[in-house]
Amino acid sequence: MIQEDKIIKALQATSTDGFIGDDAAVLPNVNGSNRYVISKDLLIEDVHFRTKYFTPEDLAHKALHVNLSDISAMGAEPLYILCGISIPSNLQDYAIRFLNSLAAICQNVDVTLIGGDTTASKDRLFISITAIGTAPESNIKYRNGAQVSDLICVIGNLGFAHLGFLSLEQSLTTDTKYINSFLRPGAKIKEGIWLGKQRAVNSMMDISDGLYIDLKRLASSSKKHAALDIDLLQNHLNPDVSVQVALEGGEDYGLLVTIHQDAFEELSHRFMESFGYDLKVVGRITDGDGLSFKQNGKPVDITVNHFAHFGERL
Amino acid sequence: MIQEDKIIKALQATSTDGFIGDDAAVLPNVNGSNRYVISKDLLIEDVHFRTKYFTPEDLAHKALHVNLSDISAMGAEPLYILCGISIPSNLQDYAIRFLNSLAAICQNVDVTLIGGDTTASKDRLFISITAIGTAPESNIKYRNGAQVSDLICVIGNLGFAHLGFLSLEQSLTTDTKYINSFLRPGAKIKEGIWLGKQRAVNSMMDISDGLYIDLKRLASSSKKHAALDIDLLQNHLNPDVSVQVALEGGEDYGLLVTIHQDAFEELSHRFMESFGYDLKVVGRITDGDGLSFKQNGKPVDITVNHFAHFGERL
Repeated sequence: MIQEDKIIKALQATSTDGFIGDDAAVLPNVNGSNRYVISKDLLIEDVHFRTKYFTPEDLAHKALHVNLSDISAMGAEPLYILCGISIPSNLQDYAIRFLNSLAAICQNVDVTLIGGDTTASKDRLFISITAIGTAPESNIKYRNGAQVSDLICVIGNLGFAHLGFLSLEQSLTTDTKYINSFLRPGAKIKEGIWLGKQRAVNSMMDISDGLYIDLKRLASSSKKHAALDIDLLQNHLNPDVSVQVALEGGEDYGLLVTIHQDAFEELSHRFMESFGYDLKVVGRITDGDGLSFKQNGKPVDITVNHFAHFGERL
Repeated sequence: MIQEDKIIKALQATSTDGFIGDDAAVLPNVNGSNRYVISKDLLIEDVHFRTKYFTPEDLAHKALHVNLSDISAMGAEPLYILCGISIPSNLQDYAIRFLNSLAAICQNVDVTLIGGDTTASKDRLFISITAIGTAPESNIKYRNGAQVSDLICVIGNLGFAHLGFLSLEQSLTTDTKYINSFLRPGAKIKEGIWLGKQRAVNSMMDISDGLYIDLKRLASSSKKHAALDIDLLQNHLNPDVSVQVALEGGEDYGLLVTIHQDAFEELSHRFMESFGYDLKVVGRITDGDGLSFKQNGKPVDITVNHFAHFGERL
């Protein structure tokens, strides 16, 4: 039987700041114009991952980056995480490797593990991470800020994680970059902080559930309409990725932003200079509500299968 | 299939502050001398609760108070929670009732639900709550502050939850106060804040895993020895509660504090005036390490079964 105290001691040894050990962790104050942002994401065995093909190190990477992605998507810099883990008896060694790896990976991205909770689980591994970041209040981006005539832009690849997922589930061989996108997605940490500083970025969120559903959420939250241009989208896609997969496939953890049209050219130029890859324009915000597609300048219907965060995929 | 968006909408309707909906929640700044404290606790079906005898409302109460207890135990006032929940298909109605009840119970204790995550679960309900509170920095109490000759005091009942647990598991009838202590423990919120303000309180934590194991943790963290006086302890116990149950039985969510001996009498008097019940002295901090028992003024050995937070009990 794993004992919580043992795990806490192991984690304390990895945590240089001595945060872990009390009932709660005490956060340092942020200075006057800064704010804390906080998010929480769950990863459930056989819903979000399988231990069959996720090594503990893969899972630690994914659990961390999925959560940091939420912080980055607000324009904030991630600082701390808390990790809750429920461990079935047959995965105790796996869990210890997971926790050691998590502590190490946190250091790579200057994030400190400040607390958490460990319990038994009857038969499946459950991971719950709370991530905390900070940003100047004026840099924080919300999904409700999209303005009419904003350009809709995607940062990062679309559909890669879905292709990786399919090949892992079906034991097919595919390009390792797709498999890595699913096993070890990289949160757009630096990009999120950079975009937070740009006044012309009117709204931002991460793309966790797929472009279609996430853009619908952004439009709905902003009480605007999103016109998605299939030609523009297709131009940006890797040849292996169909439009359908780009719209439906989740877990790429790119960013979705809307940018004031007048500032776009200058901003996208500086983005390229800073990060070495392009902001991808895929559409435009207009008056109205919902999401529509156009192709060759004309409205088209595309049936998109609803991919909810809900584990139908595993 | 429950859709996350539906649950988010239901929660947004209950959250007056509009926190829920973005990738992360933005916390207001605390003023200069205040700090945020943050904790996280998991509740796992068939480890910490059974849906057979926990109504969704019981579970919401317990999930909230277990977490607020951690904040109170630091001397802080709870302000916010985030709730992660993984829902198996056969418990969707249960989960909706849980979430509605959680939102309502939060309002009773002036706590705001600011975010979270909902996912599917293959077969068991998992609940992960992050609680956030605030306190002036000088009021925050740690478990490493115990000083030699401090009096060790317990706030709240011991063993009640364990008796309730046993009767629920074995379908025995017992006093409802024991059953309620297990199903709906009450975090010592006001007491924790009050004790945080007292300079003579040198250390504090909550009693979640039983007096024996938690006092051992406090002593270890403070690098001191805890001398537990069985006569004093026995005097405080309800006649239904044996010394053994008082030492081993967890989940009462009382508070464990050590108090400077010179200040004790005056402080305990004011505590009684404020809350209408007694601080219970059960021992004294001395030099050394570990925990020992004495009875009739002499050292005694008591074999205590290790109750870890780890669900061996269900």
